[in-house]
Amino acid sequence: MPMSVSLRNRYERRRAETRQALVRAARQILAESGDTGASIHAIAERADVGFGSFYNHFTSKPDLFDAAVDDAMEEYARAIDKHLRGLDDPAERVAGGVRLSARVAESHPEIMRILCHSELGRICASRGLAPRAKRDVEQGIASGRFSVADPVIALTTLNGSLLALLELWSNKPEVDSDRAAGAMAEMLLHMLGLSPDEARDVARRSLPAAA
Amino acid sequence: MPMSVSLRNRYERRRAETRQALVRAARQILAESGDTGASIHAIAERADVGFGSFYNHFTSKPDLFDAAVDDAMEEYARAIDKHLRGLDDPAERVAGGVRLSARVAESHPEIMRILCHSELGRICASRGLAPRAKRDVEQGIASGRFSVADPVIALTTLNGSLLALLELWSNKPEVDSDRAAGAMAEMLLHMLGLSPDEARDVARRSLPAAA
Repeated sequence: MPMSVSLRNRYERRRAETRQALVRAARQILAESGDTGASIHAIAERADVGFGSFYNHFTSKPDLFDAAVDDAMEEYARAIDKHLRGLDDPAERVAGGVRLSARVAESHPEIMRILCHSELGRICASRGLAPRAKRDVEQGIASGRFSVADPVIALTTLNGSLLALLELWSNKPEVDSDRAAGAMAEMLLHMLGLSPDEARDVARRSLPAAA
Repeated sequence: MPMSVSLRNRYERRRAETRQALVRAARQILAESGDTGASIHAIAERADVGFGSFYNHFTSKPDLFDAAVDDAMEEYARAIDKHLRGLDDPAERVAGGVRLSARVAESHPEIMRILCHSELGRICASRGLAPRAKRDVEQGIASGRFSVADPVIALTTLNGSLLALLELWSNKPEVDSDRAAGAMAEMLLHMLGLSPDEARDVARRSLPAAA
């Protein structure tokens, strides 16, 4: 007899909960110390799930930590997306992404700790802001708003710069994060081809509220 | 009786060798997997030094891994320094640092693996290129070669961009690294205030040989 719909739903829900509990435990480890040496057994225990269920979701421990960084970066990107929804100009969107990061850094300190404690390669491979920024760079080039020869390198510069800014805030909390984000947004827009005056103007426009 | 000079020298040399063996073992771990969960006992064994001598050099395991990343980044920076010695123009030095990184990435694959497997916060806290780039940015601003309002943010952008570029090469070996480095150097010089034409010109000058 096939599983009833409600039984299947319950099974799927439990399965998703188990995965999420493992991801949450891995996020905690990264936020606390970044020491990924804990055994799978210890991680499963921390997540309060059976040891055996680990392999229903992940092939290895690095696989789990990749998923944990992905999860944190996706949460970070969504917190910014909410504000950018109404903006069509790719220049405003790029500046908005950098400037809103200052707010997310403040409202999501766990994500900032995860970033600082995660391997560079793991962060760069994760989704997060990169696919959003990619779309903005491509649209900006297509419409003539940006004038850069190499979109991949432009995107690499944007991602690396933002990552280094987030790290700066984490380790130098005395830095005025709104001012720093505005200054970086202005520099990056100029790099993308806006005149210095226009870069300054766009980087200082008031930010939209969350949609 | 005080230690004789030769005895003291031998003692200091042994001490330095022990520290270097521990740093080398930590570099190997970072290059292989980045899994910093090995016990201090296992690391000392790998370094072929006594467990007790660990604490003569390091206060903790994170302290050792910080030193290992520092050591790798210093080696990377010195490989570039050798070429930049004859350049006075801060714009040429910045472009040279980015472009020569393509060569170092090829000649020092272990350092690139260490970078990708190391925590973001650990890399950003390490010395390496940052103090060199800081001097170039400050000189460029002082001489009017660069026009940026905020040297700290300019430096953060340079460091983050280069880090993301090194990561890109590690994970996409098919990228033409000389072309990518040239494109990034050009974008960064424009960001620092050079006109598009001048940025392109400086980023394409022939690189000096090692001094």
